[in-house]
Amino acid sequence: STQSTWDDQIAQQFVQAYYGMFDTNRSTLGSLYSDQSLLTFEGSQHVGAAAIVAKLTSLGFTTVRHEYQIVDAQPSAFPNGIIVFVTGNLFVDNETNPLKFAQVFQLCPTPQGSYYCHNDLFRLNVG
Amino acid sequence: STQSTWDDQIAQQFVQAYYGMFDTNRSTLGSLYSDQSLLTFEGSQHVGAAAIVAKLTSLGFTTVRHEYQIVDAQPSAFPNGIIVFVTGNLFVDNETNPLKFAQVFQLCPTPQGSYYCHNDLFRLNVG
Repeated sequence: STQSTWDDQIAQQFVQAYYGMFDTNRSTLGSLYSDQSLLTFEGSQHVGAAAIVAKLTSLGFTTVRHEYQIVDAQPSAFPNGIIVFVTGNLFVDNETNPLKFAQVFQLCPTPQGSYYCHNDLFRLNVG
Repeated sequence: STQSTWDDQIAQQFVQAYYGMFDTNRSTLGSLYSDQSLLTFEGSQHVGAAAIVAKLTSLGFTTVRHEYQIVDAQPSAFPNGIIVFVTGNLFVDNETNPLKFAQVFQLCPTPQGSYYCHNDLFRLNVG
């Protein structure tokens, strides 16, 4: 089978870590970005870990839970980079109705042999 | 404003060309891919322009129309590469109800000064 083979394990590990940190303490997410990282959040653009965390911690909800459903991954043209494409539901505060979201990451290797998030693009899928 | 500045014009031109070719004659799309290009279409993986076009032309509808709504773009970690994130509706055959889709491209420069699609990840957003 050619299903779910491309960099799938790294993508799953990243997504689990990312949304786990997002949903428990967004202020810790800076460790997953670099000073060159780019975020496009609902069309709003932010450069670098500090600005990205400032944006994510300013979002107007108290609690959030991401329920990711599909995680596709591909090797990037960038050496050892990985493009990750996530779709799922998220729940804010006491809402029981999910919001559908889609999010794209490009993970790039660090000198330490780990990965950081170089590109991050997020959109709610409004009907 | 920091809205819609990152590589937006190239992304818009690519998306217009891509969906125009897709909706009029899918068999011509090979010119937008290379032998190294990767497609993940609803979880099914295909490598290289020929295999990608074979997949896209095998899809089980006669006519299709993509109505893209949002096109986000970011410079990639790959030199002069561009990550493009599209959401929109598509209509197949005589259906009047749209299917929502989300699609990710990584565009990379060609030696001729144009761009080809290195990464392509497509998902329908099923509720």
